This record gives sequence, C-alpha cells and structure tokens, in this order.
Amino acid sequence: MERKRESIAVIGAGSWGTALAMVLADNNHEVKLWGHNPEQIKEINEHHINKKYLPDILLPEGITGFASMEEALFGVNTIILAVPTKAIREVIGKISAIRKEPLTVVHVSKGIEPDTLLRISEMIEEEMPANLLASVVVLSGPSHAEEVSLRHPTTVTVSSKNMAAADQVQDLFINNNFRVYTNPDIVGVEIGGALKNIIALAAGITDGLGYGDNAKAALITRGLAEIARLGMKMGASPLTFSGLTGIGDLIVTCTSVHSRNWRAGHLLGKGQNLQEVLDNMGMVVEGVRTTKAAKQLAVKYEVNMPIADALYDVLFNNVNAKDAVDSLMARGKKDEMDDLTNVLDI
Amino acid sequence: MERKRESIAVIGAGSWGTALAMVLADNNHEVKLWGHNPEQIKEINEHHINKKYLPDILLPEGITGFASMEEALFGVNTIILAVPTKAIREVIGKISAIRKEPLTVVHVSKGIEPDTLLRISEMIEEEMPANLLASVVVLSGPSHAEEVSLRHPTTVTVSSKNMAAADQVQDLFINNNFRVYTNPDIVGVEIGGALKNIIALAAGITDGLGYGDNAKAALITRGLAEIARLGMKMGASPLTFSGLTGIGDLIVTCTSVHSRNWRAGHLLGKGQNLQEVLDNMGMVVEGVRTTKAAKQLAVKYEVNMPIADALYDVLFNNVNAKDAVDSLMARGKKDEMDDLTNVLDI
Repeated sequence: MERKRESIAVIGAGSWGTALAMVLADNNHEVKLWGHNPEQIKEINEHHINKKYLPDILLPEGITGFASMEEALFGVNTIILAVPTKAIREVIGKISAIRKEPLTVVHVSKGIEPDTLLRISEMIEEEMPANLLASVVVLSGPSHAEEVSLRHPTTVTVSSKNMAAADQVQDLFINNNFRVYTNPDIVGVEIGGALKNIIALAAGITDGLGYGDNAKAALITRGLAEIARLGMKMGASPLTFSGLTGIGDLIVTCTSVHSRNWRAGHLLGKGQNLQEVLDNMGMVVEGVRTTKAAKQLAVKYEVNMPIADALYDVLFNNVNAKDAVDSLMARGKKDEMDDLTNVLDI
Repeated sequence: MERKRESIAVIGAGSWGTALAMVLADNNHEVKLWGHNPEQIKEINEHHINKKYLPDILLPEGITGFASMEEALFGVNTIILAVPTKAIREVIGKISAIRKEPLTVVHVSKGIEPDTLLRISEMIEEEMPANLLASVVVLSGPSHAEEVSLRHPTTVTVSSKNMAAADQVQDLFINNNFRVYTNPDIVGVEIGGALKNIIALAAGITDGLGYGDNAKAALITRGLAEIARLGMKMGASPLTFSGLTGIGDLIVTCTSVHSRNWRAGHLLGKGQNLQEVLDNMGMVVEGVRTTKAAKQLAVKYEVNMPIADALYDVLFNNVNAKDAVDSLMARGKKDEMDDLTNVLDI
C-alpha cells in the first residue's frame, strides 16, 4: 500500500506499545518509542530488541528508542499512548508541560478511573489543555501483543468523537496482518474494553475452581449481557458489544492463559486472597481497579450487575470464591429473554 | 427440589444422551436409556457404566438400559431424542411405527438438513404423524457431555412452539448443577446451535494454520454476526444470538480441543483434505453437512455469508485453507458498524 510517511511517537515501551510501534514501522512510518528505562532504550537502539517484553522479536529498523520525552515528542503530531491506566494522568501532565503544538492522542489502554468514573478518553480530555489536544482516538480489540509482534492476523477497532481523526489513525495502522475497523461509538468501545477485564477475572475464578468450559461459557454470555446493559445506560450502542471490542475482546481475554486478568482470577479460584494474588503476579491487574469502578457505575446508573457484585465481594469483602460462583449459578431467573431483552431495553 | 417422578425414555446412548439421562436420574425420574448395541446396554445394566462414551463415570441406579425400542417406549410420555441429525428420520419412523399414544419429543441435536433446509424440529414434524406428536421441544446450549456427567455447573436453553411443553421440560431437567432457561425463539435456538459448528470448523482451521487467538476472536465475532444475519431473515430474534445458544455455545465449541468440529478444522488447517480428515476422525462431523446447508440457505435468503462461503470452498472445492483465510482477513470493509447494523437490519 502506498502511503505518506509520518513521524509518530509511541509513549510506553511495554509489550503492547512495542508491538504497535512494529506495525507502524512495518507501514514505513518513522517511529519514536519512548520508555522510562534508559537501559531498555539502549537495548532497543543497539540490539533492536525489547528483551523484557518481547524477548524473541527482532524490532524493525524504523523504530528508534528515546528515554527523553522532549526528544520523543519533537516533530510529531500523533502519539500512541500505551501506559497503564494508573499512569495516564501523570504522563499526560508531562506531555502537556513540553508541547506547544496540538497533538492527536491515540490511547490503547483499557480501564475506568475509580471514583471519577471517567473513561480514558475523558481522563485525557480533563488532564490536557484543550489548545494542545487535537483529537483523542481509542484503539481497542482482541489483540495479544505477542501475536501482533509475530505478524499474525489481528483485527482492531478505532473510535473517536472526531471520526476524521479515527479515519487517519486507521490509515496509519492498517495493513494485511493488522486490520483496522472504524466504529463511531466511542462509549461502547471504551466500556467494552474496560469491563471485559472483570469478566476475565470471573472466568479465571471458575477455571480455578475446576468448573469447566460449560460454566465459563455461561459466565461469559451473561457477563456480556451485563456489560451491555451498563453500556446502554451510559449511551453506548448495543451493537458495539457484539463486535470486536465486545465479544471479540472478551473471548480472547477469557480463554487465553496469557491474559493476566484471567490468571489473577485463576489464583483466586485456587484459594488465594487478593493480596496474595497481587504479590504473586507482580504486575498491574487492571480488572481489580475496574471492578471497583463497575460497582460504582452500577449504583450510579441503577443497573443490575450480579457478576460484578459477586466479584467485588470476592476481591474486597473476603467472600469465598466458590460460594460466590455457586450463588451466581443458582439465581432464580428462568427465562433467558428476561436477561437479553434488558440489553436492548425492549 | 420436590418434584413428580416421571418415566422418560432417552433415545441414543452416546455421550450426550447418557449425560442427560444422568441429569434426569439425579432428579429422581425413572430413565429408560435406549441404545442399538445390546452389549453396551448389558454393560449399562450390569456395571452401570457406558465405557465407550463416558468411560470414567458411574451411572446412577435410576438409569436402565434397553436394546428394544418397544420396551423403552412403553409407559413413557416424553422422549429425549439424542441421535445424530442424519439418523433422525429413521429413528422417528421406527418410533412412529410402535407408538399408539402422543409423545413429547425433546431433541438435543444440532444441524440443518441439506437440500430440504429444514430445522430439526421441522424434520420431526414432517416425519411423525400429527396424532402421535404432542409437542417438539429443543434443548441446546454450551454443554460438553463430559462436564455434565461430572455434575459441573452447566446452563442450557429449552424452546418450543408450545412454551407450556418447554416449561415442563425445564422442570424435568433443572437442578443446582444443570440450569435450564426457557426462550420462546425456537428458530434462533435451532439455527444458532446448528451454524456454530461451521464457525468451529473455521476456528479450527485458523488454529491449524497457527494464526493465534487474535485471528480466532475476529473469526468468532464475525461468524456470529453472519449467523445472526441469516437467522434474522429466517425469523429468529437477534437477541437469541447473544444468549446461551448463540455466543455461549459458540465460545465452548470454538475454544475447546474436545469439540470434534474444531478438531476437524484443525486437521484441515494442518493441510489434510476433507476425505483424509473424515477418515482420521472416524465419527460424524456435523459441521461438514451444515456447511452445505448454510451455503444453500445463504442463497435462498439472499444473505452474505463470507465465512460459510470460504469454508465451503475449502471443504468441497479444494481451495487451499490458508488462501481462504487470508482472503477473508483482507476483505475491504472498513466500518465495523456496516457489519453489525446488518444484524439488526438497521
């Protein structure tokens, strides 16, 4: 495909940021990959490898690492923001202190901020001065970074309040291995991406309890209905939850042992408590924070979310995981359409 | 749960028929399990085991095996029909020759008859004299027989044109491990159950090609949209495809190595042709027959079904599996909502 070569900064050199940098470099863009660890950046520039996050992958020549944010941002109009949800405000603050010109910010994180209950695009809009923010675009979908780095076929969705900006981001990323769809429903895309981590935690618990595929399929199905009910109340289209950032992402996250949310749930199902799980994982488990946010959202929007409630009790109220799952299974509802029609508010 | 003890015949002593017989026996019903192999029946009655299909499971005392259809049908008003789609007309013919009184037939098979393009409940209605058929009920959902036989939590859906009959079947089966929901949309329930086998074959192919979880999630997501588009044209509710017999069953079938449709696809992805695959499997692969039927249905109802088309070409036109999947991935469509809104005909 013939396309204009652009200069783009990827902020965050974890596995997802690095994999997305590879896609952009494959598309012949000049990619500036920022990371906070100077040794990691040196390794990327000297050996074209990111050993900690993608140990077996040779990075394309088009990627240059930067430990200085000033240098990374110099001369770019678009950044890909690939940092944990927790770090977004701080990083956006740093960027805003440096930039003089407007930027398009493409975020690729999945979460809801507890207490403020803001989606990530809203956090960015709140944190960044309007004169510096050209557009916020979200890129989301079923995508293990490792597979993207191996150039296996992958599909994702981009969305924005400004769909012209989303179209441009689609053009930056799309190629034969990495298919990019647009979807104007940014609320649905962000909510689906965030809340699937809760269902992944719950799916991990049923697997940890040894309950099998039948139970997990039931949980995923009803979990999706639950997410869609909430999303609708927040203004999302129900259709988005049937798409890549809904069902698609949910399937990948709930059925892969590579998903850290699933793994955290699995340890909970095996009998560990939250603190033990977090100590064992040694990394961010977005679903734990998102469960808190979901509990608050369910109250705010008056939506019945039995799976999120049960998970909250397991995580924060010391309820036994088996008891929580068993009581979910034994719920009285008997007509499937009661659950499903609620999704479309029919 | 206090309930009336009934006498019920389960026709077909494969893994699914036997597992369902166990659920009914656990609920204190008198269960007559019919199989065509006298040695298998002897084993069930003398040793309470069905070694070929559920080798490690001790069957409850409430199950009695019968090799005689006459004896199995004597004194029952409800049968569970658990035979391959291919055998349904023949078995219903035999039953009709024996019975004098009306029967409720609960079928648990998943398929569409090629050429006639009938759903299974319609085949039964066509084959059985009306004065012998009280009602046809379908029981479907995400349910590996092995897990049901281990009493792991499982959820299924029952549906019928006569919902009073579906309610009675719900009461027969429901217990704490086996949750039964009703859904009045029999078209959606039967179509979802049948067509998910096609997507499972295709998912097996992408796995056989080594394409990974991202590709499979995309395929499942778009496969479900494709099934829903067809189902809607046939009169189904779109909501049913978001339920247990839609997404739920699709997830179990596409992500489990126990699924024979997935396994057949996996071998195709590894480079075997259809005949080699069928020889290797040595058992019925419903998805192969269903792919033929889906191709015919797509023409009849004028629905665009790219995944079913591609699979048909791989199975019957000797198209290379990798080429078929690659061309699916490279389709031109760029806005996700184009795919999804078609589902609801918006």
